[in-house]
Amino acid sequence: MRMTDLIAVKRDGGELTTEQIDFMIQAYTRGEIPDYQMSAMCMAILLRGMNDRETLDMTMSMMHSGEVMDLSRIKGLKADKHSTGGVGDKTSLVLCPMAAACGLKIAKMSGRGLGHTGGTLDKLESFPGFQVGISEERFFENVNKTGLAIIGQTADLVPADKKLYALRDVTGTVPSVPLIVSSIMSKKLASGADILVLDVKCGSGAFMKTVEEARELARGLTRIGRLAQRRCAAVITDMDQPLGWAVGNALEVKEALAVLRGEQEGDLLELCLTLGGLMLTEAGLAEDMAGAREQLLAAVREGRALKKLAELVEAQGGDSRAVYDPSLLPQAPVVLPVPAERAGTVSRIEAEKVGLVSMHLGGGRVDKESVIDLSVGVVLAKKLGDRVEPGESLAEIHAPSEEKAEEAAQLLRQCFSFSDTPVTRPAFIKDIVR
Amino acid sequence: MRMTDLIAVKRDGGELTTEQIDFMIQAYTRGEIPDYQMSAMCMAILLRGMNDRETLDMTMSMMHSGEVMDLSRIKGLKADKHSTGGVGDKTSLVLCPMAAACGLKIAKMSGRGLGHTGGTLDKLESFPGFQVGISEERFFENVNKTGLAIIGQTADLVPADKKLYALRDVTGTVPSVPLIVSSIMSKKLASGADILVLDVKCGSGAFMKTVEEARELARGLTRIGRLAQRRCAAVITDMDQPLGWAVGNALEVKEALAVLRGEQEGDLLELCLTLGGLMLTEAGLAEDMAGAREQLLAAVREGRALKKLAELVEAQGGDSRAVYDPSLLPQAPVVLPVPAERAGTVSRIEAEKVGLVSMHLGGGRVDKESVIDLSVGVVLAKKLGDRVEPGESLAEIHAPSEEKAEEAAQLLRQCFSFSDTPVTRPAFIKDIVR
Repeated sequence: MRMTDLIAVKRDGGELTTEQIDFMIQAYTRGEIPDYQMSAMCMAILLRGMNDRETLDMTMSMMHSGEVMDLSRIKGLKADKHSTGGVGDKTSLVLCPMAAACGLKIAKMSGRGLGHTGGTLDKLESFPGFQVGISEERFFENVNKTGLAIIGQTADLVPADKKLYALRDVTGTVPSVPLIVSSIMSKKLASGADILVLDVKCGSGAFMKTVEEARELARGLTRIGRLAQRRCAAVITDMDQPLGWAVGNALEVKEALAVLRGEQEGDLLELCLTLGGLMLTEAGLAEDMAGAREQLLAAVREGRALKKLAELVEAQGGDSRAVYDPSLLPQAPVVLPVPAERAGTVSRIEAEKVGLVSMHLGGGRVDKESVIDLSVGVVLAKKLGDRVEPGESLAEIHAPSEEKAEEAAQLLRQCFSFSDTPVTRPAFIKDIVR
Repeated sequence: MRMTDLIAVKRDGGELTTEQIDFMIQAYTRGEIPDYQMSAMCMAILLRGMNDRETLDMTMSMMHSGEVMDLSRIKGLKADKHSTGGVGDKTSLVLCPMAAACGLKIAKMSGRGLGHTGGTLDKLESFPGFQVGISEERFFENVNKTGLAIIGQTADLVPADKKLYALRDVTGTVPSVPLIVSSIMSKKLASGADILVLDVKCGSGAFMKTVEEARELARGLTRIGRLAQRRCAAVITDMDQPLGWAVGNALEVKEALAVLRGEQEGDLLELCLTLGGLMLTEAGLAEDMAGAREQLLAAVREGRALKKLAELVEAQGGDSRAVYDPSLLPQAPVVLPVPAERAGTVSRIEAEKVGLVSMHLGGGRVDKESVIDLSVGVVLAKKLGDRVEPGESLAEIHAPSEEKAEEAAQLLRQCFSFSDTPVTRPAFIKDIVR
């Protein structure tokens, strides 16, 4: 088999066979196919497309390029969640304890943040002493005991994706549905869960700008999940502004705690109830979304969800007192409100830019070696559609110094746009794709 | 300027600016853009296309990536010819002397053969002592004196194309009209001629399989030539069988001599009269194709064309007696006729396979370092539409040994297909594109 022949097949709009796709992925992972051939193939795939059979074959081949987790040692139905990535997205911190409190098993592998988006592992490390690198043995033990464990991805999970994504990133070949689907699903399938719910972000702050694009991706993801014998559902959510109020590691943990205490409603809670509802209904633990919602809210109301988070923190060596006393979490020395300079209705909050403000404060990674400041970030005080008077606070900056705080305040103002007429808040949950 | 942004523009069907194209070509030539980005770009160009302005910009940028010949020291109108490549194509050996005998200046840079197609330089070296590596000084002197000189391409002619073509060859990105046009035209423009005629081959033995494809390429080439201020015309010719009768270096020279002596008619002569006619009419040396044809035939009839070839050989250190006495050219020790095994009408002669037979005999290069045997090859005795009786010769094999000759005879038989009903010869000259 010659890679140039395979490129020609896809270039001319043809279909690649199972054997051809597996040859390509395995040989590329081993370094036997050069980057310049793979990038031409990726561009041909992007412009010519792949059908479901090809996408499934690519997903399975990538999944088998490295270690595949065997979760059979965990009793019960294992659920996992994936988000296409957003600013202020602390969903896992809320959803996983809620779902575990309702009887699901969550054996989750998470990532670290890079650039303007945060990572669940960094957020969890806000709990003093929290270990993300526990052994596989202890990971399984913890899930069996408390129903919940969250660790870093093992180095050998889907090496094909690590190599391929790095190449796509520098060759203009990221925005291809079959390539995105195989990248996401190969990792999720390798992680071994039975039930998989997906949060596909949509809007100016997301990769998919329109609902139509997001729906195409969501359908691709769930179709491949089902073809791979997993229970799978997706929700399409708005990313025209950051999710919730806080952006920054410990600040987001505090917001998650507020939701788990039942003290905060709004988009973040809605998202967790929807994703949790999809998990419970797919698992057969609830008859419908209304029933699932009731179970999840009861877990919050009765303190069982918060307790699950405390058990998770405790089991992974962290100080679980911080779950009940957020003042034990990292605190920034300077907190500066950002007063509005004009009256109006908030018509836009550029999510990506808010993420960059948090990065500027030291809360994000510039590269893989960056050390991040867990205490810093932004807490919004106004969101889309809110009325603001001059001098009223738009947000609070949590900074390491007065100087940094002032700089960040300037940058943050530029994230906001105002209108003199009322602004309709877009629907947050845009669609559910089963 | 970032290459990933340029790839995204073309990927999304956009138009690249003059500055963007020049950045891309120059930075790639200097090694500042990696192959994996350029191959993704080539695939995007192949699938999205480029308009004339982009193709011209790419051609000019590639042309300026290295040395550009200044032919102003040569008096008169300089003409050049390019062929998209074929088996048995000895056109330059006939056309250049004919055109020079009619008053045009031919300062030609030619290539060597690789694979199953031969190169003009190799063929010329059949004349004992012929030097393809004369100095630029002598090259100009010779053209001014005799009207004709043919040398190898200088190493620094369009380095962008050398690098880009090697990449396209292994990434499935050869068959793109704008990429083919910029590759051909950058070299031809850098060679400095005022008039350029192009022979675009079409058929089973050529890169362009249909007349429509060939016409698209021919139009692309002539449009870019005119946009670059050159006089330019193209002819689309049949490549459903080898051109003329001989395939192999010295054998092709002998055939060219026969045409120049006025002893052979047929496709090769027709092609030279057409290309020469385009040269003379574009130069204004003939009013129309009929007048040009008369001038070219007169040059043959009066022995002036043959004399020009003798002057060329003499001026470049070769033994010009061989022009008048072909027995002085390299002769293979074994000549074996290939008798037909059945009766029928020749319905097909696979040109590429005939080229491979000549290669098998040692007449072609496997790689750049191969030493080739100038004496060997194939002389066809029958062509498309010819009636054959069993035992009649299909061709003569010129071989270094009896064993090689027998092997080649077997291979050659497989190049022929026969029909029991009459076969219509396809028109050889399919179209002229000005």
